[in-house]
Amino acid sequence: MKKADIGLIGLAVMGQNLVLNMADNGYTVAVYNRTTQKMTDFIEGPAKGYDNIVGAETIEDFIAQLERPRRVMLMVKAGEVVDKFIETVLPHLEEGDIIIDGGNSHFPDSNRRTKELAEKGIHFIGTGVSGGEEGARRGPSIMPGGNEKAWPYVKPVFQAISAKTENGEACCDWVGNDGAGHYVKMVHNGIEYGDMQLITEAYQLLHEAIGMNYEEMHKVFADYNKGPLDSYLIEITRDILAFRDDAGEPLVEKILDTAGQKGTGKWTGISALDLGMPVTLIGESVFARCLSALKDERVAASKKIKGPDVTFSGDKDEFVKDLEQALLFAKIISYAQGFMLMKEAAKEYSWKLNYGAIALMWRGGCIIRSVFLGKIKEAFDKNPELSNLIMDDYFGDILQKAQNSLRKVVTAAVTLGIPVPTLSTALAFFDGYRSERLPANLLQAQRDYFGAHTYERTDKPRGEFFHTNWTGTGGNVSSTTYEV
Amino acid sequence: MKKADIGLIGLAVMGQNLVLNMADNGYTVAVYNRTTQKMTDFIEGPAKGYDNIVGAETIEDFIAQLERPRRVMLMVKAGEVVDKFIETVLPHLEEGDIIIDGGNSHFPDSNRRTKELAEKGIHFIGTGVSGGEEGARRGPSIMPGGNEKAWPYVKPVFQAISAKTENGEACCDWVGNDGAGHYVKMVHNGIEYGDMQLITEAYQLLHEAIGMNYEEMHKVFADYNKGPLDSYLIEITRDILAFRDDAGEPLVEKILDTAGQKGTGKWTGISALDLGMPVTLIGESVFARCLSALKDERVAASKKIKGPDVTFSGDKDEFVKDLEQALLFAKIISYAQGFMLMKEAAKEYSWKLNYGAIALMWRGGCIIRSVFLGKIKEAFDKNPELSNLIMDDYFGDILQKAQNSLRKVVTAAVTLGIPVPTLSTALAFFDGYRSERLPANLLQAQRDYFGAHTYERTDKPRGEFFHTNWTGTGGNVSSTTYEV
Repeated sequence: MKKADIGLIGLAVMGQNLVLNMADNGYTVAVYNRTTQKMTDFIEGPAKGYDNIVGAETIEDFIAQLERPRRVMLMVKAGEVVDKFIETVLPHLEEGDIIIDGGNSHFPDSNRRTKELAEKGIHFIGTGVSGGEEGARRGPSIMPGGNEKAWPYVKPVFQAISAKTENGEACCDWVGNDGAGHYVKMVHNGIEYGDMQLITEAYQLLHEAIGMNYEEMHKVFADYNKGPLDSYLIEITRDILAFRDDAGEPLVEKILDTAGQKGTGKWTGISALDLGMPVTLIGESVFARCLSALKDERVAASKKIKGPDVTFSGDKDEFVKDLEQALLFAKIISYAQGFMLMKEAAKEYSWKLNYGAIALMWRGGCIIRSVFLGKIKEAFDKNPELSNLIMDDYFGDILQKAQNSLRKVVTAAVTLGIPVPTLSTALAFFDGYRSERLPANLLQAQRDYFGAHTYERTDKPRGEFFHTNWTGTGGNVSSTTYEV
Repeated sequence: MKKADIGLIGLAVMGQNLVLNMADNGYTVAVYNRTTQKMTDFIEGPAKGYDNIVGAETIEDFIAQLERPRRVMLMVKAGEVVDKFIETVLPHLEEGDIIIDGGNSHFPDSNRRTKELAEKGIHFIGTGVSGGEEGARRGPSIMPGGNEKAWPYVKPVFQAISAKTENGEACCDWVGNDGAGHYVKMVHNGIEYGDMQLITEAYQLLHEAIGMNYEEMHKVFADYNKGPLDSYLIEITRDILAFRDDAGEPLVEKILDTAGQKGTGKWTGISALDLGMPVTLIGESVFARCLSALKDERVAASKKIKGPDVTFSGDKDEFVKDLEQALLFAKIISYAQGFMLMKEAAKEYSWKLNYGAIALMWRGGCIIRSVFLGKIKEAFDKNPELSNLIMDDYFGDILQKAQNSLRKVVTAAVTLGIPVPTLSTALAFFDGYRSERLPANLLQAQRDYFGAHTYERTDKPRGEFFHTNWTGTGGNVSSTTYEV
């Protein structure tokens, strides 16, 4: 009997769908699950009729099914569970075998695992997989990093099962060493947080600022999906807004407004703070989810604190058009920030990232897939050294033209009392980024005043530091102990 | 000869000033510095004439000077240096002796040090000290936490040297176990970041929106300092704006607009993300510093990207008044967020924090000292169980009355193209916090659509989760592996 090309452990929805996808692409797959019942349910259910999907009840049996070098893919909960399964399979593996972690692992864990396993002769791949259950089944975006020695053995499978662009290019390529794949997946998820939050702000504005019903909002998103915002998330928003429950009422209206977080969005925000990159839009998106979770507090506050008593007075059709431009503007800022972060991470962790290739990987299959990402790919193809998306002619022009629409939308929201944390932070970032001078000179003066932190001067070379005795009293000792 | 009441290691500006402060309060202090020259410079310079300040050239000599239980205070760079000095003094100490770390240490380090030293019979205190060099000399705000057994031996010294309120209360009290003192100091610093960023936004608006010169801006801040914004930071801003260099020109204008960060503000943002608390104003403040640091990129962008071509058309005096209300509003939001964070941290780390006492500690001596903090103290005195500052009658009333001013200021900034990241995030948070419903229902629908993440319903009890087969295809397996 033919041995399996690859083995997969962990038969939750993502794992099951990846297996079916591999099998459809002609690969023989061995599967194992800690709870055997889940494995047999899968073999007798979704996998029925596939003679190239083989179930194993024990790890020994599972490993015995695999062609060498053995490729063992884990689709299990990120964290300790991954380490436990690595420990479990390790005694059964030989030098040159490959372990692939396809979960949402935190990149420092993948850094560590790559190194630890390399010392044991095992080649580790930590890979991001995005696309949800549908993506896993029909073609996800796959972002592998880790030990490059393993890549030739994994590449054919991954590029076969991955999504393809209109031109047939696989949305999967080697990202970089160690945790680079999971890092890029993390930023992908952070950007996803941002895209989703922007859409919810648009939804609230359409609903509450200009009083649209669900049918009207459905049409607006259907229209948006035909323009430059064309993307998976706009598409499903269009469909969600049209979805009626058994009573014939919009289902989304009955869903509780408390969003989960604590995963990769949070990590992206923390990495941004750690690396000192102003990734404000993702930051506000994560915080918006946190605020949504404080439901009881919000209900109590809503009874006590009143907002403005104003109604929208502008032209509604024009507002819908402005909102489209505002979303496009904010999306450019969010992606610009995300790429700024990856650039800084590459510097920090000595990864060679190919930004055009990353845009291509995200172009199809994953949750943030969009026409827009094709434009980002073009920008980096035109200039691989592009310092910032904002500086690309195509995106820079859109920003300059769309800014007026965003200013109008934010002004309306601010006046009406509708929270738009990500739309407004996008604008603040844009206005800051294009400022030759920011008021941080005053901030440096304050720090020097109270903490003798010193400052640089506009009329002196960088790297020369000055301290002023602002009060005429106190010492001239500059601070070395304290950082504020 | 009388032995020393306390010993201090680390004679940078903060250490020197704390020693002089202790000596002025009648305590005998032994001092040591790794570089002996720094110690002798201090003894022969600022400490000249004090017979209760004793220099030591070796650790042995230093320890020998101390009364038992020995109190050794470290004023050295946070991080490994603290651990090194602890290792250095440890062999010379006996059970019941006390080590105090007065640097800006990260709270997890203080958690660890409290435990490790307790196992060795040494009582550790990790304390925040705020007030800059002037504060250290004349009376800082001191926030001690750690091993409570040490507190009776340290309390008299700390409360003697600390700042006092108008009523003579010491701005120093026991905060809580382990790293609680450094945690509260960290949040203090985060709030300081926020206060400073708000002031710089006001400065830029006065300067660029309504074209004020430095003399006029100086007067505005002088006026602000007579009202509810009365605080140390407004006061020094007033003085900085009036400060002229030798050429008779405003010095602040010649300071480079790139602010330092990487310290406690960043940690506050990370802790907020970790604990899931929407501390947006501090987050934006840290990011604003990061953006200021990208000076070269900003200069390049300023040449390529144009903003709006609009001039201010409103009443300037009215704008100055609105701006005062806007600052007050945003300050309330920022402190409300800071206290939300401390409350969540207390839950997470099992600390018993007294929020009124914390407000009192910050009332004097430290960088954020203000009349405003007295009002926060009153709010917690009135109701120690207060869920949120926003829900206090006094602060809630101000917010409701001042919101119109903030809306006008943000609208002006947005229209004119002046970045106001913290003013606008304050407003977005307020409008979100007082929203019974946020649009996160759509977000939950999206997550359920692409990842089968399930959702709760408004018409069902909390804790019941539902999944919808939105597309009519795909499985009904809900996701357990993936969190998005």
